[in-house]
Amino acid sequence: MSRPPGRKQENHKISRELFVLTYGALVAQLCKDYEKDEDVNTCLDRMGYGIGIRLIDDFLARSAVKKCRSYSETADMIAQVAFKMYLGVTPSVSCSSAAGNEFSLILDKNPLVDFVEELPAERASLCYCNLLCGVIRGALEMVHLAAEVTFLQDRLKGDAVTEIGITFLRKAEDRKHKRNK
Amino acid sequence: MSRPPGRKQENHKISRELFVLTYGALVAQLCKDYEKDEDVNTCLDRMGYGIGIRLIDDFLARSAVKKCRSYSETADMIAQVAFKMYLGVTPSVSCSSAAGNEFSLILDKNPLVDFVEELPAERASLCYCNLLCGVIRGALEMVHLAAEVTFLQDRLKGDAVTEIGITFLRKAEDRKHKRNK
Repeated sequence: MSRPPGRKQENHKISRELFVLTYGALVAQLCKDYEKDEDVNTCLDRMGYGIGIRLIDDFLARSAVKKCRSYSETADMIAQVAFKMYLGVTPSVSCSSAAGNEFSLILDKNPLVDFVEELPAERASLCYCNLLCGVIRGALEMVHLAAEVTFLQDRLKGDAVTEIGITFLRKAEDRKHKRNK
Repeated sequence: MSRPPGRKQENHKISRELFVLTYGALVAQLCKDYEKDEDVNTCLDRMGYGIGIRLIDDFLARSAVKKCRSYSETADMIAQVAFKMYLGVTPSVSCSSAAGNEFSLILDKNPLVDFVEELPAERASLCYCNLLCGVIRGALEMVHLAAEVTFLQDRLKGDAVTEIGITFLRKAEDRKHKRNK
């Protein structure tokens, strides 16, 4: 009762806790539905993809960002604008290939696992946050960038940090052109 | 890239869109899992209950609210503090029984259905947001208040507003005492 009604910029913001717990309920449901971790991971990625292809419009409208001119700029945009906007955290970015098309987003703290202590022993291959990979993949596809997005490290699995790898794939025409050379 | 890093009060806030789309994926999955709308509704309520009993600690810690002295005060607290904190909206509250234990939370706008146009014809009995009822029920139970929480009206079903009904149940001892009279 002590809170002022204040509208400000908060219209689009909600509390993270409810999201985190709801996400946990979703993963738990999928673990009931599918025996194999791989199937849960695939399902989370697929759901995330469906979210990403819808979320991109919201992102472009609200961020008012300009077209990125390089993979590096795109990776920075995902980390510094998109993660900040949607999850309230900013991963650090590193480029991990000489070809300049592989990047890592490194999260010291993963906001999606606030209430998760550790994965149960029988779910050792679960990529708990795999939805995020799908979201990134789906959103990138809508701006005509094909990418593979996977977890490379995960604090839930005992790694020191959580690391999402993004590999931008050359466009189909480029590949075809190369093959025909 | 144009956003200042600003930490302020935003640590606990995330963008609503990602939550809304993730919730949609959860409901869609349950609709795949269960043929009957009633089973989906029950499952959402059960999941919400599990979330509510965990969320209450976060709520009490962050809101620093004092103990409510009446059902009416409790209903106001849910609407004005909890809904505002977790969903960024404030439903209006009305008391709908002479006994003073039935309340309605009325939402002009339901933030959970931002991306939902209408329910498919074959899902006419689905209570799309039933998770919320479970969350409220679970959270109330943890502060020793038994309640029935259900959707009474739903804009997704063509009603003018979305209305969540909360009926506080007399305590078990009260009921027993009454019967023994």
